[in-house]
Amino acid sequence: MIEKEKYEECKARALEYFEKAAIAVSARERSELEVADFGLGRIDEFGVELIIMVNTERVSAKEVVLFPGQICPQHYHPDMKGIKGKEETFRCRWGQMYLYTEGEPSPSPRARVPQDKEDVFTLWREHVLNPGDCITIYPGTPHWFQAGPEGAVFSEFGTHNDDRFDVFLDPEIVR
Amino acid sequence: MIEKEKYEECKARALEYFEKAAIAVSARERSELEVADFGLGRIDEFGVELIIMVNTERVSAKEVVLFPGQICPQHYHPDMKGIKGKEETFRCRWGQMYLYTEGEPSPSPRARVPQDKEDVFTLWREHVLNPGDCITIYPGTPHWFQAGPEGAVFSEFGTHNDDRFDVFLDPEIVR
Repeated sequence: MIEKEKYEECKARALEYFEKAAIAVSARERSELEVADFGLGRIDEFGVELIIMVNTERVSAKEVVLFPGQICPQHYHPDMKGIKGKEETFRCRWGQMYLYTEGEPSPSPRARVPQDKEDVFTLWREHVLNPGDCITIYPGTPHWFQAGPEGAVFSEFGTHNDDRFDVFLDPEIVR
Repeated sequence: MIEKEKYEECKARALEYFEKAAIAVSARERSELEVADFGLGRIDEFGVELIIMVNTERVSAKEVVLFPGQICPQHYHPDMKGIKGKEETFRCRWGQMYLYTEGEPSPSPRARVPQDKEDVFTLWREHVLNPGDCITIYPGTPHWFQAGPEGAVFSEFGTHNDDRFDVFLDPEIVR
């Protein structure tokens, strides 16, 4: 769990990144900004900061901040009871992000994973996303990502969002 | 139809608006930027300029420019052969837009419609969208919108996009 003080610090810091990226945020979104540490209690290494712009039965959209080097751990969005899993498109807005999927591992990937967690990152096919770049991740497709040295701000356009169904490789993760 | 020269002029102008809004656009999107005049040949009054960030079977996302006072005419997205019509959420990024839906007409709406087209704008319940504001339009819901005096840049998050199914009130419109 993340301490209250640290949570507020991350919230304020995330808002600074939205300002750097010139992304306008409403008063509601500002107060509801989420800091997710995946239950690992290591927010500087593993975490995302986000606002939910919309989340209906059919469509969701978020704006997400990754602090420099921050990692969203390896996971996928499964089909559930005959309903297709979540599809999501990431669009880098500011900074740089490294995204990893199944396939031929990159010979010299840019991401750095803490040593004690190396076993829960098995995908090393690298996609480097600069501002304006998009990538679509279909249901059931494992992936993870890390911000570059300056951090990253990206948009996520997806189907309905319900984090409870995400399947993470790291058994220590609690969503 | 819009003349080639005017089309290129609108394209260049739209890119300036994306710059003002600090929205990064990829090389592909830059070259594929669409200028839609709805077949009316009156682009300064009726038109939208847009890039398609993603359009899959389930999700679409666009960035859209409206020049000052430019109007997207009244239309809705119908259900088709048992498939739900398009749902879309508009998020204002820069400038200001006035959006109109069914309901109690606003006593002093901000939009201005050319006199010869007044009969094809029947909705006057006003929603003013400033940067950071969102509104969701569900299938079958008629709506239209106009940019404020500085123009507007907005994102659209939706289900699959196929403009051929849009139903416009103005019979002169060809999509």
